[in-house]
Amino acid sequence: MENAAKTESTHPVPPSFETAPDRYRHFRIELDGDVARLLMSVREDEPLCPGYVLKLNSYDLGVDIELCDAVQRLRFEHPEVRTVVVTSGRDRIFCAGANIHMLAQSTHGFKVNFCKFTNETRLAIEDACRHSGQKYLAAVSGPCAGGGYELAMACDEIILIDDGSSTVALPEVPLLGVLPGTGGLTRLVDKRKVRRDRADVFSTLAEGIRGKRSVEWRLVDQIAPRSRFAQVVHTRAHQLATEAKAALPSAPGPQTGVVLEPLSPTVDGDTISYRFVHLKLDRTHRTAHLTMNGPGPGQAVGSAEALHQLASRGELWALRAFRELDDVLCRLRFHEPLIGLVILQTRGDRAEVLAADAALYAQREYWLGREVLLNMARVLRRLDMTAKSFFAVVEGESCFAGSLLELLLAADRSYVLESPEVKLATGTLNAGALLCGNGQTRLGLRCHDQPARVDEILRRGEAGPLSAEDADKLGLCTVLADDLDFADTLRLAVEERVSLSPDALTGMEQNLRFPGPDLSEGKVFGRLSAWQNWIFIRENATGPQGALTSYGRPERPSFDWRRT
Amino acid sequence: MENAAKTESTHPVPPSFETAPDRYRHFRIELDGDVARLLMSVREDEPLCPGYVLKLNSYDLGVDIELCDAVQRLRFEHPEVRTVVVTSGRDRIFCAGANIHMLAQSTHGFKVNFCKFTNETRLAIEDACRHSGQKYLAAVSGPCAGGGYELAMACDEIILIDDGSSTVALPEVPLLGVLPGTGGLTRLVDKRKVRRDRADVFSTLAEGIRGKRSVEWRLVDQIAPRSRFAQVVHTRAHQLATEAKAALPSAPGPQTGVVLEPLSPTVDGDTISYRFVHLKLDRTHRTAHLTMNGPGPGQAVGSAEALHQLASRGELWALRAFRELDDVLCRLRFHEPLIGLVILQTRGDRAEVLAADAALYAQREYWLGREVLLNMARVLRRLDMTAKSFFAVVEGESCFAGSLLELLLAADRSYVLESPEVKLATGTLNAGALLCGNGQTRLGLRCHDQPARVDEILRRGEAGPLSAEDADKLGLCTVLADDLDFADTLRLAVEERVSLSPDALTGMEQNLRFPGPDLSEGKVFGRLSAWQNWIFIRENATGPQGALTSYGRPERPSFDWRRT
Repeated sequence: MENAAKTESTHPVPPSFETAPDRYRHFRIELDGDVARLLMSVREDEPLCPGYVLKLNSYDLGVDIELCDAVQRLRFEHPEVRTVVVTSGRDRIFCAGANIHMLAQSTHGFKVNFCKFTNETRLAIEDACRHSGQKYLAAVSGPCAGGGYELAMACDEIILIDDGSSTVALPEVPLLGVLPGTGGLTRLVDKRKVRRDRADVFSTLAEGIRGKRSVEWRLVDQIAPRSRFAQVVHTRAHQLATEAKAALPSAPGPQTGVVLEPLSPTVDGDTISYRFVHLKLDRTHRTAHLTMNGPGPGQAVGSAEALHQLASRGELWALRAFRELDDVLCRLRFHEPLIGLVILQTRGDRAEVLAADAALYAQREYWLGREVLLNMARVLRRLDMTAKSFFAVVEGESCFAGSLLELLLAADRSYVLESPEVKLATGTLNAGALLCGNGQTRLGLRCHDQPARVDEILRRGEAGPLSAEDADKLGLCTVLADDLDFADTLRLAVEERVSLSPDALTGMEQNLRFPGPDLSEGKVFGRLSAWQNWIFIRENATGPQGALTSYGRPERPSFDWRRT
Repeated sequence: MENAAKTESTHPVPPSFETAPDRYRHFRIELDGDVARLLMSVREDEPLCPGYVLKLNSYDLGVDIELCDAVQRLRFEHPEVRTVVVTSGRDRIFCAGANIHMLAQSTHGFKVNFCKFTNETRLAIEDACRHSGQKYLAAVSGPCAGGGYELAMACDEIILIDDGSSTVALPEVPLLGVLPGTGGLTRLVDKRKVRRDRADVFSTLAEGIRGKRSVEWRLVDQIAPRSRFAQVVHTRAHQLATEAKAALPSAPGPQTGVVLEPLSPTVDGDTISYRFVHLKLDRTHRTAHLTMNGPGPGQAVGSAEALHQLASRGELWALRAFRELDDVLCRLRFHEPLIGLVILQTRGDRAEVLAADAALYAQREYWLGREVLLNMARVLRRLDMTAKSFFAVVEGESCFAGSLLELLLAADRSYVLESPEVKLATGTLNAGALLCGNGQTRLGLRCHDQPARVDEILRRGEAGPLSAEDADKLGLCTVLADDLDFADTLRLAVEERVSLSPDALTGMEQNLRFPGPDLSEGKVFGRLSAWQNWIFIRENATGPQGALTSYGRPERPSFDWRRT
């Protein structure tokens, strides 16, 4: 029944999404007190896989993994940095966007996952600007096109050199027949508030816009001539840093960074083991079991100092465990396209999770506490956006409590064993510290039929763990089954799930996971990437004579002109 | 360059979207004071085109055009009706949804347009419930599946017969590998507030849900046994009618309906002429010129009686002209897939438009005034959602004033001639009477970069028409060009537009037209239909062994299991 042998080649992805500054090939971080410079100098001859050359600071997944890592490390390892200047380390080119030849040779699935990952990095930049008091300033000298301009738009501000030739551009529609789909169209109107008719003109203008007009149209915030460019950037970067420090000071405690140590999981056949996260693949059934373990004792730190010490030793559960979850989600997306269903399980001591959560939340005004919480929230949003089905399975040994309860709330369904040992526990972090992309809590989304129930659940949770029966009454169990039925019910549900059309499931899940109004982030993933998903497989883009396929060739693309 | 000869067959569409109750083949309206019954009895052997049989009250475009017409006429011709009971005229079947064999044999473009049109009819039902005080009650006896349940969800309330076998269901994902894409998934969670994990279970359950559980899960509002079903529906219908009358009474004036007379345009080669709307197709350039004429004198009626008289004689411009626009937009979508760009022009007397608008607005508490305004708003939303590029062209003879200015505001771009004769004029109806699907005014969306400007424009407009130069300063002109440049600038822009990938343009426009947060309507069209668009062309749905293609055949569909 399976189309096992697809002729389409898969774009190779690295075995790991981990890297570190001393291994960067394409980025460099320069520190100068409260200002850092993040320099992009993509090595043309070091693409992730053969077949294309990374000309003009264009990027592929390998480049983007470094960017993601840099953004993450700037927060954790360099909290003194209050402005990050994103700029090019190369002459007369800022960034030409995603490498087109890489896109043209990639599978549909890879392209979609690549865009999603890139988008998440952009959102991580905006998260730093908004919540970490770490402002990003794009200093654009040389052409800045496509994904390059999308990167600039992810920054708080953009300064463009006014040299008569440097432009910002979104040339995807006119040159490639696809969309600026890494948030570009959404950010253009929703974030930068470019007038929609001008956004229309700009997005069809292959050559882009430069100089004064780029400011008038709100495409950039400032322009500066070559002679003053460095100075203007320098001055603005330091202004922003001063403002950011005043707007979001840290509570007392050690203000030095903590190093993010390697995760280095053990990969053994179909099993990937980290310290707290374990993944077991069942390829026959296209299912994975993802188990996340709670912390041991000693995590309920009582001070900023203690928190800093734990994190410095690589022993802070909330940081380590969610970094592991992040890494395993990226692996699942890129390495395991055939896995359709992930069974989420938890193990551990509920009281320890709740105590660790509460202690961390108490440090939310301290920079490191804040960063650890923000990271947990980002990782959970990565889960929300993963195109796999998730079933949470709750048994006697489970530990769905506090931050680990978010896994159940994020899941498409929860299967709960009716047994006295089974308990669910809410805690401090379920009340608003770990928001979804639409600005809602996962508990709120799960109870969107009865908003008053959120408070009821949280209040009940304060009195102690909820029995399976109570949790069911409160709407937290999709299926509650007793010992006699549980295994069979779950087995049948799993079999049924993995038999359904993977496309229909992806579309369905993306529509059901986010009830209520959509914000920009929802529009980026739900609306924009859905359109991109469609456009990427149309003959007009990726057919033999499609615009993406024929980019760079002398012949013009050939279109089926029917509008749908 | 054009792929002129596509092998895919086009689903035939009727030459017109007009019908009337005496010509209905599939619906019947029964009137009983303030309650009407809308009975669906689809004639199996009268599909719109050969190749499928409309079994089990399943529908095709022909059926849906009648439903659309019935909803429209119930508002205009039967304002005394305060509850519409939507039910089946056939035994033991409510509605099986869109006909699957029709879908399987249709082109991708037809499927997408069909779903969009169907969605717009659903939204028209909700518009009547919300704004016209005309409640819809679905009385479901017999299976109610897919589009049938989506129709029921469009109603305010659903009563399901409790007979041990009648169910509501969304079987698209498990049976067909596509989505319940006519708003089904969005309405399930956003409107009916079904818990998202239950929505997940329900949407993968081919057999659907019946009885008490359907109420517990909020899938329906009430159940009633066969013996009491008719009575329960009757009682609830009259209750709703009484409530609706109290909640939204009409201002004094004639309370009898006005008949919607046939539009009967003249079709002459590539020209379609209505009384106020003219369409000229330029197939060579894949462009259409759509001209809308303003009213003559005598439209600024001073009373409800005068408004009713004009409308009864078929002479009310605001009703007639926008009905014509609606019809021509449907024709453009279904009959002219190759037309990529529509040039919007207006002709007439600005003062007459503004006076007619103001007089109509003064009657907004009177049922007919309200209905005419609501219809204008719906037609403009049909324009917003049309997958063609729109350029508004403003010259000396143009009449972009008040309600006709909305055409310019809806357009992707405006080209304005710099000349003393050129004027734009705002009026009463630009301030909030004609909202977009996201709840914003078109003026607000156009000025979303500078919200304060909306008031400024409206205030300036009160003092008289705006010169081209002022309009440009206020952000209403995408391009302002003088006599020397205008024609060439426009010609080049048109040529460039029609040369771009039609898919990329559709995706781009849908992303740029609605800046800011999305509501359910935006999610239905932007998010849900984009996913549906994608899923419809995947091999998993429509390939030779796809689920949609192989529905009803003995062999199971074959899937490419890769998740994206």
